[in-house]
Amino acid sequence: MLVDGKSMRSIWCTEIGGDISIIDQRKLPHELVVEQLATIEDVATAISTMAVRGAPLIGATAAYGIALAARKDAGDTALAQAAEHIAATRPTARNLLWALEQMSAALAEIPINDRVDVAYARANSICEEDVQINKAIGCVGLPLIEAHAKANPNRPVNVLTHCNAGWLATVDWGTATAPMYMAHEAGIDLHVWVDETRPRSQGAALTAWELGHQGIDHHLITDTSSGHLMQTGQVDLVITGTDRVTSCGDVCNKIGTYLVALAAHDNQVPMYVATPSPTIDWSISDGLTQIPIEQRHPDEVSLVCGQTNVGSVEQVRISPLGTPATNYAFDITPSRLVTGLITERGIVAPTHKDLASSFSDCDTSLNTTP
Amino acid sequence: MLVDGKSMRSIWCTEIGGDISIIDQRKLPHELVVEQLATIEDVATAISTMAVRGAPLIGATAAYGIALAARKDAGDTALAQAAEHIAATRPTARNLLWALEQMSAALAEIPINDRVDVAYARANSICEEDVQINKAIGCVGLPLIEAHAKANPNRPVNVLTHCNAGWLATVDWGTATAPMYMAHEAGIDLHVWVDETRPRSQGAALTAWELGHQGIDHHLITDTSSGHLMQTGQVDLVITGTDRVTSCGDVCNKIGTYLVALAAHDNQVPMYVATPSPTIDWSISDGLTQIPIEQRHPDEVSLVCGQTNVGSVEQVRISPLGTPATNYAFDITPSRLVTGLITERGIVAPTHKDLASSFSDCDTSLNTTP
Repeated sequence: MLVDGKSMRSIWCTEIGGDISIIDQRKLPHELVVEQLATIEDVATAISTMAVRGAPLIGATAAYGIALAARKDAGDTALAQAAEHIAATRPTARNLLWALEQMSAALAEIPINDRVDVAYARANSICEEDVQINKAIGCVGLPLIEAHAKANPNRPVNVLTHCNAGWLATVDWGTATAPMYMAHEAGIDLHVWVDETRPRSQGAALTAWELGHQGIDHHLITDTSSGHLMQTGQVDLVITGTDRVTSCGDVCNKIGTYLVALAAHDNQVPMYVATPSPTIDWSISDGLTQIPIEQRHPDEVSLVCGQTNVGSVEQVRISPLGTPATNYAFDITPSRLVTGLITERGIVAPTHKDLASSFSDCDTSLNTTP
Repeated sequence: MLVDGKSMRSIWCTEIGGDISIIDQRKLPHELVVEQLATIEDVATAISTMAVRGAPLIGATAAYGIALAARKDAGDTALAQAAEHIAATRPTARNLLWALEQMSAALAEIPINDRVDVAYARANSICEEDVQINKAIGCVGLPLIEAHAKANPNRPVNVLTHCNAGWLATVDWGTATAPMYMAHEAGIDLHVWVDETRPRSQGAALTAWELGHQGIDHHLITDTSSGHLMQTGQVDLVITGTDRVTSCGDVCNKIGTYLVALAAHDNQVPMYVATPSPTIDWSISDGLTQIPIEQRHPDEVSLVCGQTNVGSVEQVRISPLGTPATNYAFDITPSRLVTGLITERGIVAPTHKDLASSFSDCDTSLNTTP
């Protein structure tokens, strides 16, 4: 999407066998810094430190990680070790494992000497597929926004989103933002409430930055605000992304999504989750017991990064020195609170029946063995 | 309560006719600064800039404001203007108007020459009454914590609280914290989850500071975390404070309380609201339509204040320059989500019947005329 009026993606590779370029998202919104990833270690560090983040982008980066590993050593052992290394970077997003499975399947029968070309090609195609999936999610989600615009022609449609499921969380377009970008392109009067999303404030830092560059009207709000806005009729619909959806429609997403969903349910506000199919984990059914929830460093809670009024970027501690903090990164929104999953194949109810029916060509077997 | 092992209150006056001392709470937790209030303007500024905050402390400060006004001019006109000036500082907390009504009633029939003495005496007694009310709330709330300790003797009782309804929000003891302080004194193994409470982070800055000085085990969490903690069985009960309770038990409190209450309700976690009787607004019944919700400056959302690693206190901007923000300061928790109100007279169900029965000596008439 647009940065200062020019198109940009979150990750790119200009030649087979070359390094990978990413935006270091830890520097946003204060500075746009492009970094090169040259090794499997670079990729693992970029994912674990959240220089890249967002389930689909983690998947794309992991795929390139295997290509970079193959560039060094394309043997079975080296590639298996590379996949293991990358798989250990973050536990929650489904797309990470999905991308590694895709790369493994693509390379398994390929002679070692051809693997670099094939690995880069498959990683590139994973990126292109991501873009196409997100565009499709945009087309599927657009009518949801259009319906509110038609019902209330004299005011903006108010969408609330949590965290960043924008183009920065994917390769391009975003998942939750794709319907918003399409609505904006279609001339719909749109306004987005952007949840700050503590502790890492991806809403304030990334979603607000994206929407600003795209020219979409928005306001930043604290994570404490969604309930009040819904109680007072200021939210028409919620659209979030997800890191993993179970085969029965439970949604794992950034911590706080469950609270937004509870408020939406209590106020009859539709709660949609933009769900690209690589995010669906067909092997599990119950989000609460079967999805590992990452715990991150407590400093992410105690320290806040931002720009001072003289332009330097600083970390400041908001609590007394020595105050312990707890930092779970995700929570589970039970399927009962989800109005619908916006997939590349249409709006799907968060049930195993509807998911399996829409994705019958995937391995939709319900395997609940722990 | 304790600061570095020594007892302290949030506001005090050492002589009739003297200045008023407060802790400038905007400087906490990084610096303990005591300020003197000498004029009605000082009082209005202290309340509106949140140097003092918390419904009961706002009430106490407002009472001293009338005493300071009387020191300058104790005539009817001057005192009425002073009350009007203070009443306009913040719109939501009931205690502000309650304290002004108390002062007005105390001074109405008093000759002008005696008003300074009477005003200081009444303001002092409002402070002492606050302390006694909070101690009583502590005694009433303690058995709630004790019951969990008895049911689970091998682990701490986990209480979650939002914002700061501690001694800093009152004159001493706090409302929500009073049962916690008494439980700690009684030797109960207690652990408190402290919601950060953006935008002003009173949980991180004030509640964590209080609990640390009191030696109570606690962890700071983001406002996005309460749902996950409750889903995973890590919260035994919620205790919050309140800025205004309607005659039917709707609770107005710091923005985000409604989300905590929704999560508590969804997970069968008891949700208690510590409610001193001066916080009850007998003139209104419906929180959502009848309580004015303060909107504060958007910079409170966009800028975060904290201490750098070299010890200076800085404000940093977390969003792109120019990103608009919206900043509602309170929300309404409907009575249906409240397990009970912890009042100085016992646990009261959030209904007009039970509130009126417990406080039949107050003016509990239900006046629903707008």
